[in-house]
Amino acid sequence: VAKIAFQEVAILGTGMIGSSLGLALKQLSPPPRIIGYDINSDSRRAANSAKAMDRVTGNIGEAVRAADLVIVSTPVRAIEIVFQEIAPLLRPDATVTDTASTKRQVLAWARQHLPPGTSFVGGHPMSGPNTAGTSGPSATIFNSAVYCVTPTPTADSKRVEQIVKMIEAIGSVAYYVDPDEHDGLVASISHLPYVLSATMMRVAATDRGWREARTIAAGGFAVATQLAEGDPRMWADICLTNPDQVGRQIDRMIESLEEVKEAMQHGDEGLYDRLLEAQNQRFEWLAGRGNDEPAPINTDDLKPANLLFGSRLGGLFGRGDRDKR
Amino acid sequence: VAKIAFQEVAILGTGMIGSSLGLALKQLSPPPRIIGYDINSDSRRAANSAKAMDRVTGNIGEAVRAADLVIVSTPVRAIEIVFQEIAPLLRPDATVTDTASTKRQVLAWARQHLPPGTSFVGGHPMSGPNTAGTSGPSATIFNSAVYCVTPTPTADSKRVEQIVKMIEAIGSVAYYVDPDEHDGLVASISHLPYVLSATMMRVAATDRGWREARTIAAGGFAVATQLAEGDPRMWADICLTNPDQVGRQIDRMIESLEEVKEAMQHGDEGLYDRLLEAQNQRFEWLAGRGNDEPAPINTDDLKPANLLFGSRLGGLFGRGDRDKR
Repeated sequence: VAKIAFQEVAILGTGMIGSSLGLALKQLSPPPRIIGYDINSDSRRAANSAKAMDRVTGNIGEAVRAADLVIVSTPVRAIEIVFQEIAPLLRPDATVTDTASTKRQVLAWARQHLPPGTSFVGGHPMSGPNTAGTSGPSATIFNSAVYCVTPTPTADSKRVEQIVKMIEAIGSVAYYVDPDEHDGLVASISHLPYVLSATMMRVAATDRGWREARTIAAGGFAVATQLAEGDPRMWADICLTNPDQVGRQIDRMIESLEEVKEAMQHGDEGLYDRLLEAQNQRFEWLAGRGNDEPAPINTDDLKPANLLFGSRLGGLFGRGDRDKR
Repeated sequence: VAKIAFQEVAILGTGMIGSSLGLALKQLSPPPRIIGYDINSDSRRAANSAKAMDRVTGNIGEAVRAADLVIVSTPVRAIEIVFQEIAPLLRPDATVTDTASTKRQVLAWARQHLPPGTSFVGGHPMSGPNTAGTSGPSATIFNSAVYCVTPTPTADSKRVEQIVKMIEAIGSVAYYVDPDEHDGLVASISHLPYVLSATMMRVAATDRGWREARTIAAGGFAVATQLAEGDPRMWADICLTNPDQVGRQIDRMIESLEEVKEAMQHGDEGLYDRLLEAQNQRFEWLAGRGNDEPAPINTDDLKPANLLFGSRLGGLFGRGDRDKR
């Protein structure tokens, strides 16, 4: 069991991710003291019954006052207000991180609202449940998961290192990525899949044959609409803070669907080649999982000067970086 | 264990569905004699090692010569050739059925190529595996599954009834549906989900960031691309024999994606309402499964005069029918 530098952790937003982080941090030895805050009393009650925190409060000042680490795990668009609220209340040496699925906007808010001395290190655990949780929070969701890290250029490198240690302590693999590049990558492999699933569900349920179709819909339909179970508040916030990148992926998807339709309606055997290629890509991706771990952390990279912020070029971080060493 | 009328069954195409049918029929008491045929020797070998048939042959004449039931379970577009090949070889009293995922085209080929005296009863078990089978054929995939039935207007009603009995004997629930209506319903709840998954896989794997994205892609991506594992030959055939209906669903999907993009790029809170609606539709669909079984078979409906072929109106069959009784 790893040791972390933080002694008092405030978790703002005690939903699925916040409470799971609480449970994971409690297992460390010695565990930090953990105070949860949520604006919603049902969410506080749920965190209490899951024993995810040492204490849960509805008073944000009480939560952050003594915290040397503040983790913001609310839906993305609430983060701006949370930053504004905590800015005058933070300890001068506090480190702040978040767990949101988009990073460009969150880093802009951090620069805008947090005190200049505060080290903000953006975070995104790629470990969320794929469906609205009947299963509840769990410390194990972080095991072997990729955890994206996007520090602000002004963040103290020691604090960045401490966040990485915390990520490793809960079993995840830290993955450095530029915030703009992050938002582009997750638009493709996370946001588009969700948008397709929710849209597919609506398209089916509003069709003239739905009353009959719902009766015969089977396993394929269940898989295709599974992600539509996701929290609509969380996902609306994600889309609304990443509109350009998600929009770009929607455009690429529409273009590719038009090509499928074209091939289909011309009886074009090229359709088979496309579908075969998709099958091969799926098998190759599956085969690569596990072997294809993100780059190990080189602590030299933690110095802000090496983080090359604002680059939109892929491959500057993560695996591309490893190749250069 | 139910009894069926057929004593010798030929299964043409010994893939996943054909072999699973063989295994399911073997469990009846008394079991019919089952002869499998496949053009592909690997597929014959696999059926042999699964002990899915009593005998497997590469000679189609040998397979159908003595069969009172012929089940065609090849990819859809091979069915036309199979019908042409078996037409002169069938017993005069043979009943023919199929397991293809599209029905309009198959019924047209049956009318065109099978001898006038042959009763053709189209079938579509909604029980296929969602992914290319590492799991192999299994008798249990038919348990409680919906099995669509689309007889030709000239099919003998006693033969139709015998097919329904066979469907019930293997544990499935027979569901009468007009072939055009069938193809419309499955375009929405089966064909579109597959097309989206395969297209999503291609869109992600051909993006500039794929080398990094594949490393951080997690559970959501795995779910979204799962159906892309399906057999590309089978799926190309399905799309190419149902281009209008699948094309219509692709158009509806594109329209809905454009609306999502629009809402996203205007920071429109209406996006939240759409996503909430999709979540509710998913939960409602899940809640309705099981309670919402297809209509029980009324044997009066088996008379061709009651089958109203060619209707494109939804609700004439299945649950709509039940409501009228």
